[in-house]
Amino acid sequence: MIRVGVIGVGTVGRAVVSILEENASIISARAGDTIIVKSGVVRNLDKVRDLSILVSQDPYDIINDPEIDIVVELMGGIETPFEILKSALKNGKAVVTANKAVLAYHRYELQEIAGEIPFEFEASVAGGIPIINALRDGLSANHILSIMGIMNGTCNFMLTKMMKEGVAFDAVLDEAQALGYAEADPTFDIGGFDAAHKLLILASIAYGIDAKPEEILIEGIEGITQADIAFAKEFGYTIKLLGIAARDGAEVELRVHASLVRESAMIAKIDGVMNGISVVGDRVGETLYYGPGAGGNATASAVVANIIDIVRSGKRSPMLGFNHPLEEGLHLKNRDDICSKYYLRLRVLDKPGILAKITQLFADHSISIEAVIQRPSETECAHLLFATHEATERSVRELMSQLEVLDAVLETPYMIRIV
Amino acid sequence: MIRVGVIGVGTVGRAVVSILEENASIISARAGDTIIVKSGVVRNLDKVRDLSILVSQDPYDIINDPEIDIVVELMGGIETPFEILKSALKNGKAVVTANKAVLAYHRYELQEIAGEIPFEFEASVAGGIPIINALRDGLSANHILSIMGIMNGTCNFMLTKMMKEGVAFDAVLDEAQALGYAEADPTFDIGGFDAAHKLLILASIAYGIDAKPEEILIEGIEGITQADIAFAKEFGYTIKLLGIAARDGAEVELRVHASLVRESAMIAKIDGVMNGISVVGDRVGETLYYGPGAGGNATASAVVANIIDIVRSGKRSPMLGFNHPLEEGLHLKNRDDICSKYYLRLRVLDKPGILAKITQLFADHSISIEAVIQRPSETECAHLLFATHEATERSVRELMSQLEVLDAVLETPYMIRIV
Repeated sequence: MIRVGVIGVGTVGRAVVSILEENASIISARAGDTIIVKSGVVRNLDKVRDLSILVSQDPYDIINDPEIDIVVELMGGIETPFEILKSALKNGKAVVTANKAVLAYHRYELQEIAGEIPFEFEASVAGGIPIINALRDGLSANHILSIMGIMNGTCNFMLTKMMKEGVAFDAVLDEAQALGYAEADPTFDIGGFDAAHKLLILASIAYGIDAKPEEILIEGIEGITQADIAFAKEFGYTIKLLGIAARDGAEVELRVHASLVRESAMIAKIDGVMNGISVVGDRVGETLYYGPGAGGNATASAVVANIIDIVRSGKRSPMLGFNHPLEEGLHLKNRDDICSKYYLRLRVLDKPGILAKITQLFADHSISIEAVIQRPSETECAHLLFATHEATERSVRELMSQLEVLDAVLETPYMIRIV
Repeated sequence: MIRVGVIGVGTVGRAVVSILEENASIISARAGDTIIVKSGVVRNLDKVRDLSILVSQDPYDIINDPEIDIVVELMGGIETPFEILKSALKNGKAVVTANKAVLAYHRYELQEIAGEIPFEFEASVAGGIPIINALRDGLSANHILSIMGIMNGTCNFMLTKMMKEGVAFDAVLDEAQALGYAEADPTFDIGGFDAAHKLLILASIAYGIDAKPEEILIEGIEGITQADIAFAKEFGYTIKLLGIAARDGAEVELRVHASLVRESAMIAKIDGVMNGISVVGDRVGETLYYGPGAGGNATASAVVANIIDIVRSGKRSPMLGFNHPLEEGLHLKNRDDICSKYYLRLRVLDKPGILAKITQLFADHSISIEAVIQRPSETECAHLLFATHEATERSVRELMSQLEVLDAVLETPYMIRIV
C-alpha cells in the first residue's frame, strides 16, 4: 500500500482525496498497488471537519512521517513550498506538485536535489491536459520547433466574450470575477504572469532552457478595446493571449502576449475557459492538446495520474496499462442495442399519401421524427430527409428494411448517425 | 548502447533510421543512453542499396541476434507479424510496433506473452499523436466515459473536400488516390476498418474490453451524397467518420460510422488529413488530441518515442526529462530581438498631414506597413489602425515611444502582435 500526504487541502486537494477514494478500484488496477491519502495539511483546522483524512497545520507532520511515500504539494507560493519540497526530497519522499510558481523559479534546483527521487508536476501546466506527459515522453524523438498555447483560462474566457459578444473589457472582467474565473486582484491572470510561469516550465522540458519570469517578454490583455476587436474581425483574426516558445537557430524566444491569430488556425478555435497548446516537432509536425486548464477535478486528475506514474515506476506496467481487470462485469454492448439519433435519406415517388405511409412506419417502430424535409430530386421524384430522436440500431434497421420494399421508395434508404 | 532491429524498412522504417541518426544527440539526452539501428529486414534487397544499416530478408536474423535489444515491427498484416512478435518476446526482446491490425486481433495474447518485457505501440493509433500515452498514463486517474475520434485521415480528407468544396464522392476519391492518401483498393480506409482497428486498441486501454473487429459496428463513408451534405450544412452539422467508444452502465459500445456532428464541437473543427481524438474522463472532463495520423516522419516520431521510453524504463528519468544538456549553446533570445508582425492602434487628431508624419516615422524605423485603416472615433479624432510586416520588438518600441510624444497622438499607442 502506498501512502500519500497532501500539503494544502483546498479545492484541488479535496478532489485528489475524492478521486483516490472513489476511483480506488480502477486506480489500483492501473497502478498495480493500493493508494491511500493518509494525512493532509490545512491552514485552518475549523474548515476541514468533514474530511476523511488526518489533518494538521504543520507540513513537517507529513514530511517527517516515515509512513508517507509520496508528498503532494498544493499550497501555492514560491519560497515556502520550495523549502518544504527540498525537505521532502531530503527525506526521500517522492513529490507531486501542481505549483507552477515554485517551478517557474526553482525547477532546476529541484531537479538537482531530486536526482533519482521521483518528482512530478503535470498539473502545474494546463490543469487536466497531459501536456508535460506529451512533451517529455510522447514527442521525445523531436527537436521542438515551437510551442504556442492558450495557457490561461481566465484570459481566454474574457477574450472569447469580447470577440463573440462584443462585451467591453471591464464588463467581462466583472463577469469573470462573479463566476469565480478571475481573482479579486486579477493581475496575475490578465497580466500574463500565470501563463508565463507555465511557458517557462514547458520551455525547460522542450529546450532545457533556464530562465526566470523577469527575463522574458510578458504582457497581458489589459487595454484591448472594441476598436481592436473590430479590426480583428474585419481581417479574419481572433485575439488570444498566447504563451510562445520558439526555436530560432541557437536562440529560444519566450514570450507571453495578446496575439492576433488567423481564425482558421486550430489554436484560434479554442474558446471560453478551455486551454489548448500546439506543439510543433521537427518530425511529427503540429500536434495540439486541448482541455480544461483549471478546476479542482481536472487539476486533481493530473495530480493523481502523477501519483500512479510514481507507483508504477520501478516495476514494468503491463502493455495495456492495467494489472487486473479494470472493472468486473464490464462488457461489450450488443451493436443492435446502441442508441443514437439518425438522419435518413429516402428517394421516393412524389405522389399523394407517400409521406403519410412512410411516417406511419416510423411510428410503428416507435421512432420519433425531429425534422423532415422534402426536396424535389428529379421529375416525379423527391428526396425525403428525416432527422429522428433517439432510437436503437435494431429499430432503425427494421424500419429501413421495411421502407426499402415499399414500391414508392426508389433506392435503398441511406442513414447517417447524428452524434 | 542500445541496439534496435527494424522489421519492415519502408517509409516509416526509413524515417525511424533517419530520426535515430539525425536527432541522436537530443535522443541520448532524453533516453540516457545511445540508441542505434543495427539492422533491418526488407522484402526486396534491391530497393535498399542506399540504407546505412545491415539488411536482410529474414526477420529471424534480427529476432535471433543476441546483440539486438529492441525489435521494431513495421511490416503490417496479422498472422505473420503475430508469429514474429511472439518469437521476439520469447527471445526476451523488447518490442515496438506500429501495426494496428495485429493488435486489433491479438493484443491480449501479446500482453500475456510479453509479461514484464516492454511492448509499446503508440504509432498504431493516430500516427504522431501521443494518444496512447495520454490514455494510459495522463488520464489514468479517470473512468473513461467516452472516446470519440477522427482516426482515419483518408476519410477526413475526403469528407472535408465534400463539405467545403462540394466535390462529389467519386471525384474526391480519385483525388485522394492521386495524392497518395488512399490506396488503389480504398476499402480498408473508406469502409471504416482502419479506424475500427484503432478504436479497439484504445478501448482496451480505457476499458480493458476485449473485442475483435467482427464483433463491432463498422460502417464507412461510401454512399454519402450531395443531398446529405446539403442537409448537414442547413442544420449546422458537418460529417465525420468517427470511431466511438462509450460507457453505458456496465456496457461499452464500440462503433465506427459516418456521423453528423455539430459544427461548434471541437471534433468538427478537425479538417483534411489530420486526426483528432476527444476523450472524456469522469474527473478531467473533455480533453482532445490533434495531429497528423499518418506519414513516415509522424509515425516514426511515435515509434522512436516508444524506443526512448523503453530505454528510460528501469532507471529513473530526471524530473525535466533529460540527462545532459539537450543542446549545447542553446540560449534565451534577448526579448528586444524577437521578430513579429504588429497591429498598432493610434488615436489621433483628424488633421491634414498627420498620416504622412506618422507613416514617415514607420519608414524611419524600417517598419513596413501591410495595411492601414482610418476610422473616425469622435469629433475631430480618428483611430489609425496599422498592420505591419515583420519587425523587431526594439524597433516597434522605439517607434511607439516616438509616436507617443507627437502632439497629434492623443493617447498611448497600443500594440498587439500578429502571430
